[in-house]
Amino acid sequence: MPHITLTEGAPGILGPMLFRPETAKPLNELAESLLRGPNSLSQGERELIATYVSSQNDCFFCQTIHGAVAAHHLQGNETLVAETKRAPENASISAKLKALLAIAAKVQGGGKHVKPDDIERARQQGATDLEIHDTVLIAAAFCMYNRYVDGLATWAPHDPNVYRQQGARLATEGYIGSTERQRADSAAQTV
Amino acid sequence: MPHITLTEGAPGILGPMLFRPETAKPLNELAESLLRGPNSLSQGERELIATYVSSQNDCFFCQTIHGAVAAHHLQGNETLVAETKRAPENASISAKLKALLAIAAKVQGGGKHVKPDDIERARQQGATDLEIHDTVLIAAAFCMYNRYVDGLATWAPHDPNVYRQQGARLATEGYIGSTERQRADSAAQTV
Repeated sequence: MPHITLTEGAPGILGPMLFRPETAKPLNELAESLLRGPNSLSQGERELIATYVSSQNDCFFCQTIHGAVAAHHLQGNETLVAETKRAPENASISAKLKALLAIAAKVQGGGKHVKPDDIERARQQGATDLEIHDTVLIAAAFCMYNRYVDGLATWAPHDPNVYRQQGARLATEGYIGSTERQRADSAAQTV
Repeated sequence: MPHITLTEGAPGILGPMLFRPETAKPLNELAESLLRGPNSLSQGERELIATYVSSQNDCFFCQTIHGAVAAHHLQGNETLVAETKRAPENASISAKLKALLAIAAKVQGGGKHVKPDDIERARQQGATDLEIHDTVLIAAAFCMYNRYVDGLATWAPHDPNVYRQQGARLATEGYIGSTERQRADSAAQTV
């Protein structure tokens, strides 16, 4: 049961976002900019970073929904998402993405864990300042989103098909309107 | 030295915010809403939560600048800020704020560390759902800001008077325009 009273049936972060639209707005805008804004990293790569950090933080909702968004961007390749979560160094992803995921793992542990060697490895694989910046901020942001979701003990569905459907919707429609879409869905369910 | 090339002399988070205005915008809007928006928790109390979490994350820049903002709101009481960082249970703050800081400390460790007993203690001291929500999100957000600042190895000044001045400015002018104010300051310094 959530620690505070939230709209029943609103999954994961959408419960507290419906509760507090003032903060939902910048939270959704940050996700939209980081995960879907113009970038030399593909949306699939950025969602993999988000999924991996959420997995390291043991946040069921975030790793499952962003894993579904990643899979949607990666031609439905759920195996690649699972491999990346389990052992990124052995996954079928680029050497640059492996180096960026190693930076993300350090950030998850704490900002000071990132060392010049981690940055140098990423640069040797062609990572730019912007890609390193965005990797650090995606990892840091998911240390926030994960704590927000679990720190309020939010409810999460367990049916994988729910995540596949919602993941496809987020992948195509984006994060900005997600709270309002949930508000409409919740209202339709209570009529 | 920062891990990526940032504007020289821009302190802490302002370096990466100048580098990436697209993400600076929602990051500043989130801080503005959480720390300065209408709330039954005073701005001083909310800045103390931010300062305490940043201290637990060992982020020098964030704990010092938000400690200065907190002190400004608390009639310049820097001793109270230092006491709260060191041992919140013994600080001269309300029993409700102590209970909220205990929740913030749990969130800092990980969302699932927050237990029903932590929430119950806060409720017994009069904390509302909104205050509990905002405490969890402030703590989670500073787990992001702290990692962003330290994960890029940003530069931070060490003169306490710099923080007193900038803290007073943030306390009165807010977070929204902080990146643009820094951009103007940096431009003036290079002329």
